Amino acid sequence: MKEINAGLIGYKFMGRAHSNAFRQVNHFFNADAKINLKAICGRDKISVQNAASKFGFESYETDWKKLIDRDDIDFVDITSPGNLHSDMALYAAYRKKHIFCEKPLANDSAKAFEMWKAAKAAGIKHQVGFNYRFVPAILLAKKLIDDGRLGTIYHFRGLYLQDWIVDPEFPLVWRLDKTVAGSGAHGDINAHIIDLAHYLVGDMKKVIGMQKTFIRKRPIVETMDGLKASGSSDAALGEVTVDDASVFMTEFQNGALGTFEATRFATGRKNGMSFEINGSKGSVKFEFEKMNELQYYNNDDPATEKGFRVISVTEDSHAYAGNWWPPGHIIGYEHTFVHEMFEFVQSIANDRAATPDFEDGYKCCRILDAVDTSIKDGQWINV
Amino acid sequence: MKEINAGLIGYKFMGRAHSNAFRQVNHFFNADAKINLKAICGRDKISVQNAASKFGFESYETDWKKLIDRDDIDFVDITSPGNLHSDMALYAAYRKKHIFCEKPLANDSAKAFEMWKAAKAAGIKHQVGFNYRFVPAILLAKKLIDDGRLGTIYHFRGLYLQDWIVDPEFPLVWRLDKTVAGSGAHGDINAHIIDLAHYLVGDMKKVIGMQKTFIRKRPIVETMDGLKASGSSDAALGEVTVDDASVFMTEFQNGALGTFEATRFATGRKNGMSFEINGSKGSVKFEFEKMNELQYYNNDDPATEKGFRVISVTEDSHAYAGNWWPPGHIIGYEHTFVHEMFEFVQSIANDRAATPDFEDGYKCCRILDAVDTSIKDGQWINV
Amino acid sequence: MKEINAGLIGYKFMGRAHSNAFRQVNHFFNADAKINLKAICGRDKISVQNAASKFGFESYETDWKKLIDRDDIDFVDITSPGNLHSDMALYAAYRKKHIFCEKPLANDSAKAFEMWKAAKAAGIKHQVGFNYRFVPAILLAKKLIDDGRLGTIYHFRGLYLQDWIVDPEFPLVWRLDKTVAGSGAHGDINAHIIDLAHYLVGDMKKVIGMQKTFIRKRPIVETMDGLKASGSSDAALGEVTVDDASVFMTEFQNGALGTFEATRFATGRKNGMSFEINGSKGSVKFEFEKMNELQYYNNDDPATEKGFRVISVTEDSHAYAGNWWPPGHIIGYEHTFVHEMFEFVQSIANDRAATPDFEDGYKCCRILDAVDTSIKDGQWINV
Amino acid sequence: MKEINAGLIGYKFMGRAHSNAFRQVNHFFNADAKINLKAICGRDKISVQNAASKFGFESYETDWKKLIDRDDIDFVDITSPGNLHSDMALYAAYRKKHIFCEKPLANDSAKAFEMWKAAKAAGIKHQVGFNYRFVPAILLAKKLIDDGRLGTIYHFRGLYLQDWIVDPEFPLVWRLDKTVAGSGAHGDINAHIIDLAHYLVGDMKKVIGMQKTFIRKRPIVETMDGLKASGSSDAALGEVTVDDASVFMTEFQNGALGTFEATRFATGRKNGMSFEINGSKGSVKFEFEKMNELQYYNNDDPATEKGFRVISVTEDSHAYAGNWWPPGHIIGYEHTFVHEMFEFVQSIANDRAATPDFEDGYKCCRILDAVDTSIKDGQWINV
Repeated sequence: MKEINAGLIGYKFMGRAHSNAFRQVNHFFNADAKINLKAICGRDKISVQNAASKFGFESYETDWKKLIDRDDIDFVDITSPGNLHSDMALYAAYRKKHIFCEKPLANDSAKAFEMWKAAKAAGIKHQVGFNYRFVPAILLAKKLIDDGRLGTIYHFRGLYLQDWIVDPEFPLVWRLDKTVAGSGAHGDINAHIIDLAHYLVGDMKKVIGMQKTFIRKRPIVETMDGLKASGSSDAALGEVTVDDASVFMTEFQNGALGTFEATRFATGRKNGMSFEINGSKGSVKFEFEKMNELQYYNNDDPATEKGFRVISVTEDSHAYAGNWWPPGHIIGYEHTFVHEMFEFVQSIANDRAATPDFEDGYKCCRILDAVDTSIKDGQWINV
Repeated sequence: MKEINAGLIGYKFMGRAHSNAFRQVNHFFNADAKINLKAICGRDKISVQNAASKFGFESYETDWKKLIDRDDIDFVDITSPGNLHSDMALYAAYRKKHIFCEKPLANDSAKAFEMWKAAKAAGIKHQVGFNYRFVPAILLAKKLIDDGRLGTIYHFRGLYLQDWIVDPEFPLVWRLDKTVAGSGAHGDINAHIIDLAHYLVGDMKKVIGMQKTFIRKRPIVETMDGLKASGSSDAALGEVTVDDASVFMTEFQNGALGTFEATRFATGRKNGMSFEINGSKGSVKFEFEKMNELQYYNNDDPATEKGFRVISVTEDSHAYAGNWWPPGHIIGYEHTFVHEMFEFVQSIANDRAATPDFEDGYKCCRILDAVDTSIKDGQWINV
Repeated sequence: MKEINAGLIGYKFMGRAHSNAFRQVNHFFNADAKINLKAICGRDKISVQNAASKFGFESYETDWKKLIDRDDIDFVDITSPGNLHSDMALYAAYRKKHIFCEKPLANDSAKAFEMWKAAKAAGIKHQVGFNYRFVPAILLAKKLIDDGRLGTIYHFRGLYLQDWIVDPEFPLVWRLDKTVAGSGAHGDINAHIIDLAHYLVGDMKKVIGMQKTFIRKRPIVETMDGLKASGSSDAALGEVTVDDASVFMTEFQNGALGTFEATRFATGRKNGMSFEINGSKGSVKFEFEKMNELQYYNNDDPATEKGFRVISVTEDSHAYAGNWWPPGHIIGYEHTFVHEMFEFVQSIANDRAATPDFEDGYKCCRILDAVDTSIKDGQWINV
Repeated sequence: MKEINAGLIGYKFMGRAHSNAFRQVNHFFNADAKINLKAICGRDKISVQNAASKFGFESYETDWKKLIDRDDIDFVDITSPGNLHSDMALYAAYRKKHIFCEKPLANDSAKAFEMWKAAKAAGIKHQVGFNYRFVPAILLAKKLIDDGRLGTIYHFRGLYLQDWIVDPEFPLVWRLDKTVAGSGAHGDINAHIIDLAHYLVGDMKKVIGMQKTFIRKRPIVETMDGLKASGSSDAALGEVTVDDASVFMTEFQNGALGTFEATRFATGRKNGMSFEINGSKGSVKFEFEKMNELQYYNNDDPATEKGFRVISVTEDSHAYAGNWWPPGHIIGYEHTFVHEMFEFVQSIANDRAATPDFEDGYKCCRILDAVDTSIKDGQWINV
């Protein structure tokens, strides 16, 4: 069988999720190529060495350029913080390596645009890590919409609610630093529901938003490298330079109204990504923490029997579900990565376009930027 | 318009619920007769006088025979403890007064049988207070079953879970006294799910049960007349003579399997009456505390779209719902009494049989007794 | 006991709900006065006569001024369409009659302001029909917030989702006519969640909104008087002059962010009023169609045991619940009116201020207007 | 690091789940030994060869004795149908290989007893595949119970509801053949909730059950080797020799009452394993299809704030959760196998007893047998 050699940049949360995906594609899917976990790359030698061993990579690098340069690397998977995406992706495109890049594609839309154009010009396969597109329940929602089962779409209502920094003692990690992360809840989680809105409803016409940083100063800790760093009450304080919450409204090109809210201050909400779409013929509801279910209301059901039906999207007839377990034996968060990586491998193996690609990544960044502008200008911004 | 004069025996929990029902039928339903709240009866003069005033009765009595004897009383509504039902009902039948009687119809099935026969012989209308039959969602379940939408029934699973006596200091109220109440959770709440099983699935073939009294002694309080009495830690203790929990299994005549559990020791469960019915073509689920909803699974739905649909049974097209409020504007517990009393009035006004009648009341008592026998004998009892 | 004579204007949906409330207060609450259903008023003689009989009023009027003038009327209850509120209320204030007025208080905030000032000057009791403030679960939320249990409030998220006009053949009823109703979803249902936000979170700093009329022309029917009118495909079409959906964002004075969405085009959603409030120490969630429940997350719970707890707000210790039924025996929509009317009666009987009063009604109208202005101007409006 | 060589017998549903567990333990857990996927065994050479390649085994065997004999095999993992368990396990014990065996341990309790005794005598580690004990939410329930947080246990209510054979055309697969599978829903899924009851509540005193085979004849298909075989309407029919549904009641040694229902005829229920436990101080509820959640009711919460709290058992402080993803990023069915295999590896690596072991497996079989006897004898059976 054809083999594809993966070079992964990053070994934290996303690095762990992606390397798992590489392995599981090989074991659970009949892909047209096998992914080799060729090399993993990180700045700290000891850590990356450990990661290579733990995740099952054959080798490691500490210099991402060297990784990209290696002849035995077919595709580069970028999971570093957002500020590094464009340099890495542009170089990979230059070296004609296929690219999988985490979202947001870049910390601003200009860079994202450049990445898209470069990838396109290089003729490589490029995909962006909007993993929620690969939840079977969301694929079912997509199918219902594409089949006209919801009719004319009137409303999209997206939420992404978390609470991991609600404690003021939570330290100033890199995700709270604008120069590294680009933005806070906005680019990290609004990005996901923006992409889903693009995917399920279509393009937007105009946006207006508001943002807030509720806790403006937080303890500085030495290793600013992840969620697990613990604050200390006598630590020096540093400024949070990103949004804690980001909210916006939109009107879509097709006339539907949309609302978006991303926050890290919704106490009690852990990974509360949810959306509801209402159309003239029906509606769908989705909540990530019940990701194996789609709620669907069919306005054509008999008058006395209408209701949101809770579909367990775990049947063989549902996307990807047949690759896993029998009906009702649920899958979890990590499976979305397996599915997206399966599709990326298929696009390389069969030389066909990947999706969502860098254009989708760019379009998301454009909305993120437009919302920022609407906040700066205090008025609606046409997209 | 025709008028029907009601004489209500009892002014506690059920007396309050029934008198409300009398009034609301007149205001919300187009019944073929008007109910006059003619007289209310209770042993304590001051209390019953207050109740008459509060509930809107024209007069009161302290002797139930006198109430029944009154020429201006058309029907007698019995809400006293179970040990008094048969004397009252037999006398009312003798005086040719229509009878509405709370469940369980009697504290044993022999008495219930006698009541049924007497009512039948007297040619009066007789109805038993299985109010849950009048929940719109349950009527929808009934219709689906009668229309064959569930196919062959395989399973009935009924629960009635409460926790109001889980505290050992809760006093020895009359409901815990076998001579008054007949039984505990068994006759009080198992009775309801037994009746629903009869109504929705059909007759039973055989039963076997088990019961338990978890707290065998409780504080004696002077006024043993209701739920609100408060215990005191230095009070004398008296014996609880009824079951705290009653569980049984059955096979129905049609071959379906049934399980029943009634308990007052399910900590956290307040009025947790629920059932699920599975058939070859579909299933229904109901939970009382979400009584405006029926969950319905249609096995004929398209393969990728099957799921329990949560039907808001509040549409004009649903039973009774059009008499109340617009869709989604939910009704509550008391409305079940209004519905059952509306039907009773209609049966009197139009001279047609009431339902559920004393035969249904008797059939429920027969199951209650059979379960008791199965426990005494330690084996299955054919019904 | 003191008696208070009620004069009710309107006999449709709200007239029915209010007259039920008058009766039920007398039967279920120990109010310091009894409400007499003295007179009901409507323009059509036959209809109002029937309503008087059905609802239990002693008399009726067809001229609202005459009703207000009657010496035997102590308070006026206004449930007519919004365009008539101010004339009626101003006249009632002039005649020193206490006033209960449905929401929105007026079709614009200037009129609402005038009503408030007139009522205040007249020294009468005045209350506005924000009935959801009287849901026991919402009162529990209020108590938790007032007790500091949620800490600093970060987010309010309110939705009011319905679908009763999603069918384009649904006729042009008065609620779709701006000259009568003032607005569509905005004043009808956004008003409710705006008031709840004021009640639970506080005043707003600035707003920006968007609205949409998805179906611009609808069949004209002869009797434009209610929800039940049925369209006909060959009927002439008339213009819908109100919003079908109204969405806005806000920042509260206390720094919290708020989102509001009201729509009549959320297919499958019947009376989907819901909100969630996130604070530094906890969160609450409420959904009207499960109105007997409050979800509460306490961030001070032990680390491994945190979770939204679903509280059945039906205990004696909960507001109003003890007046009804035992725990878990749920109440419904109409009970909110009984509660609000009980409080209004108490304010009259004990000569104390009613709440929510016309000032609250005015404040809500001011937000409704500010959102309208923000839409016209395309920018944020300070409140 | 220490290495442990695994020999897996079986490559179907459970074989796939176990081999995934072997691999994932190595990647996600800091176990004290590494599992080598040394050899997989199945009767059909082509199939087992493919499985070896897909699952990542170094080699394969077609004769299970040969596999067990191999010097490079440290532990044997038995996932074959139940009728083969005892021969395999006894031989493995004889060869002093550690054994992991799927449930039910054997098709009758006598054989299970023999296996337990042999394993014990051989001094090997032995574990039985009750994977649901390794759901983090169930471990939290266990901890709450062990810490006395539920007080005295009054009720256990277990359900395992599926519907995969509700279609009469579903073929006569091996799971419907008594000689191979031992029983139907009883041993396959009742076994799981029996074990959970043992784990969470304790031993049983007596049982009485009932069973039913709703569809007695089904199409015979050539390859009777799995769930995916498709029936054909003109196929010859063969007899179903196992139960479709199995229900029983119990009283536990500690006085609690228990109910158990396992069925493959609950239309709409996919993998509906659930239980509820009520105690004097609190209750817990669990539903497998929401396996990341535990519902917990604490009767010591303040009076107005009691409610079942829905705990997202995905925090670092919850068992195993920290090995996976951040809070709210849910895990699925397969993770239970990773957890159980991690514990088995740890028991081997550190030479300590595994749990649940063959004694637990035997105790479950003893209940399964006792229920069978109670059905044959029509009376309660003491355990």
